Amino acid sequence: MTEWTKRHLLGIEPLSVDEITLILDTAVQMREIMDRPIKKVPTLRGRTVVNLFMEASTRTRASFEMAERILSADSLSIQAAGSSVSKGESLLDTVKNLEAMTPDVIVVRHSSAGAANFLARTCQSRIVNAGDGAHEHPTQALLDAFTLRQAKGRIAGLKVAIVGDVLHSRVARSNIHLLTKMGAEVTLCAPPTLLPQQFSSLATLNWRIDEAIEGADVVMMLRLQQERMTSAFISTAREYHAQYGLTLARLKKAKNDVVVLHPGPMNRGVEIASEVADSKASLILDQVTNGVAVRMAVLYLLLGGGRE
Amino acid sequence: MTEWTKRHLLGIEPLSVDEITLILDTAVQMREIMDRPIKKVPTLRGRTVVNLFMEASTRTRASFEMAERILSADSLSIQAAGSSVSKGESLLDTVKNLEAMTPDVIVVRHSSAGAANFLARTCQSRIVNAGDGAHEHPTQALLDAFTLRQAKGRIAGLKVAIVGDVLHSRVARSNIHLLTKMGAEVTLCAPPTLLPQQFSSLATLNWRIDEAIEGADVVMMLRLQQERMTSAFISTAREYHAQYGLTLARLKKAKNDVVVLHPGPMNRGVEIASEVADSKASLILDQVTNGVAVRMAVLYLLLGGGRE
Amino acid sequence: MTEWTKRHLLGIEPLSVDEITLILDTAVQMREIMDRPIKKVPTLRGRTVVNLFMEASTRTRASFEMAERILSADSLSIQAAGSSVSKGESLLDTVKNLEAMTPDVIVVRHSSAGAANFLARTCQSRIVNAGDGAHEHPTQALLDAFTLRQAKGRIAGLKVAIVGDVLHSRVARSNIHLLTKMGAEVTLCAPPTLLPQQFSSLATLNWRIDEAIEGADVVMMLRLQQERMTSAFISTAREYHAQYGLTLARLKKAKNDVVVLHPGPMNRGVEIASEVADSKASLILDQVTNGVAVRMAVLYLLLGGGRE
Repeated sequence: MTEWTKRHLLGIEPLSVDEITLILDTAVQMREIMDRPIKKVPTLRGRTVVNLFMEASTRTRASFEMAERILSADSLSIQAAGSSVSKGESLLDTVKNLEAMTPDVIVVRHSSAGAANFLARTCQSRIVNAGDGAHEHPTQALLDAFTLRQAKGRIAGLKVAIVGDVLHSRVARSNIHLLTKMGAEVTLCAPPTLLPQQFSSLATLNWRIDEAIEGADVVMMLRLQQERMTSAFISTAREYHAQYGLTLARLKKAKNDVVVLHPGPMNRGVEIASEVADSKASLILDQVTNGVAVRMAVLYLLLGGGRE
Repeated sequence: MTEWTKRHLLGIEPLSVDEITLILDTAVQMREIMDRPIKKVPTLRGRTVVNLFMEASTRTRASFEMAERILSADSLSIQAAGSSVSKGESLLDTVKNLEAMTPDVIVVRHSSAGAANFLARTCQSRIVNAGDGAHEHPTQALLDAFTLRQAKGRIAGLKVAIVGDVLHSRVARSNIHLLTKMGAEVTLCAPPTLLPQQFSSLATLNWRIDEAIEGADVVMMLRLQQERMTSAFISTAREYHAQYGLTLARLKKAKNDVVVLHPGPMNRGVEIASEVADSKASLILDQVTNGVAVRMAVLYLLLGGGRE
Repeated sequence: MTEWTKRHLLGIEPLSVDEITLILDTAVQMREIMDRPIKKVPTLRGRTVVNLFMEASTRTRASFEMAERILSADSLSIQAAGSSVSKGESLLDTVKNLEAMTPDVIVVRHSSAGAANFLARTCQSRIVNAGDGAHEHPTQALLDAFTLRQAKGRIAGLKVAIVGDVLHSRVARSNIHLLTKMGAEVTLCAPPTLLPQQFSSLATLNWRIDEAIEGADVVMMLRLQQERMTSAFISTAREYHAQYGLTLARLKKAKNDVVVLHPGPMNRGVEIASEVADSKASLILDQVTNGVAVRMAVLYLLLGGGRE
């Protein structure tokens, strides 16, 4: 059986199929703990995790903190606002200072692509990438994969359409790597301005949503980051919905047992209609629950879980 | 003996006298724990409470967190600033996401009246209302009642004057329900612009403070929420103090053993003179201490305490 | 052996040599705990520490929180933003309310000199000063002393140059008191506008950095608080660096085995060149690690550690 040997979790791209499978299998055991009435195990007692969020985030931070609570780790959470970042210190100095306080893992969210890799190269701490710019968001892709295995029993062979702002999306990037490594067939769908050619070797590209989701087992919607949507990318949110929004009518093009994922927070009525978000096809809240289990698995493995 | 059967604590209005009494009696035991040198019991070990504060609050949040620490529950606190609320997500989606992380209770503070009830109807989590707009703030009324029982031995028969901005006050609303249910005699006092007629069946209304506090056992002052006080309501803070501020001179109209409550934070020199706030009649800091005990009791009862 | 008898830690000035030594000796034991794989002891289980930071701070707050985690204390952290401070409450009322929730210690950071002493006089809680305006920052001076003892085996007789904005620096003030009490020989160096005469009885004053660090065992650089640096104090950051920045060339004037301290966060290229900050002479990250140990020692002693 595979053993976890990596020091960090920086992205999906550097992981092998065996490593991804090990995380997902470990997460199954973690998910079982979450179904107990007392959701607490002493596994990481005495270990400290710093959650360093240099970008606003409720759900990812809360999910990591919940994972840490369940495993009995101590948490120290730092958000950009009110941090010494505002005193002009560099990310590297901030992290070097935090690691001098002897935490066991540092979870980092940062607006710059490459921030997590940079820290892994320059620091001594174990780093978990909780999203770095438009680069990767590996725990998101892992929880998506966990959710698909739970719903479909497998990932290999699934037809997955990823729809939305692929260009700016670290969620898309991590999922493209994970899904193709695991043998799924990926179609990317976005307006031409938001669909980079760089993925054409890994996935089919298609500007038309109705074609992209035809026969799909899975439709994975991406959040439209409206704060980035100048008129250079899309005209209006309303027109975007008309052309790329996932409605029940459109979803009928997919397989009968299609499932729908969204990393949240959703823009209801923009990239996804409420009738879809709240339908039986939607696994959006399962994703959130599974996210805690996946993060438990990652922290557990990075801290030597199951090695001895 | 009464058993706690409600899933949520949304307000005082839906509670029976027996339920209120059960919370207050349970809080007596909790209060004793707080007097120990080591203020910690394992009662809620492994249980997780999400504190979701969509409105700024130091004291209520700190009080709930302290209650959770003493009972050994895990806490996950989320404040509006820096949350995905700023990414345009609805309250319902925020809470549905949080509850997907499998906490045991969600404590909610929100600026909209009805927010807690709405969540209780639409979510599966146990909800504690920590203040919703001008609707209710049940744990505040419960801690006030606890403080009165502690000081006076009873609530029934007490003459209570509630003075200040009744119109905007969830504290007043919860207290009017609690005090009248428990048999106190309530007088509400405010300028005409801040004294709604809707309570005339439950309480005496009076625009003149000197008459309102005449013979009172208890004077409960309300915070003047200066951020809401446009000239439509009052002319100036100084004039408000002259007409409705509680001074030692005015307090002499009340009974000799009158006690004074205030939910905090106080505007010294506006609704209450410092000489009153710091007098022997003031129970304002007892309220704060008792607030922790009452919140411990509420969390304990909601999570099945004493049922098996 | 000395016993700790003080209720508070407000500054270095009121401490005796024996008290300083007791803290440093206790911190040695705490530092050993930090080297264990499981960095957690039950020493302060059931004790609660409120960390009240009315000024932004990442590192000091994180350091106290880490110390509390390792000692198994419960923490309740409150930052100015989003606190009831914004509702106009006074510091005294804020702290009286917090102490009514029965914490064991309140750690306070405040922008006003004298805030910690004021609270110690007016409140019942044990107070730890985590920095009050330009007055004192005692745990910083203690961690500096710990670091010097670790590197040099002693403090007495060391030649220490403190360079930078002495005028606004609570770090300088606490260090001047500590180092002179412990028998070090202190030289203060700053531009005339930033070098107050009041310390001339305790230390040598010198406007020229090259003279000040000549033959020094220790160079302690101060952060240039650029937010305060109007043209009344210095012309530009670039000129400040030219005249007072610590470069490798300048450091050669000091002893061969000189060590360099900085309280952080550093302005690289302003008061300190990166080549110095990252050199072998730099103990800057040791300071951070030792800061956790010193804060553990302070909390332990204030809460009766070793007394019975």
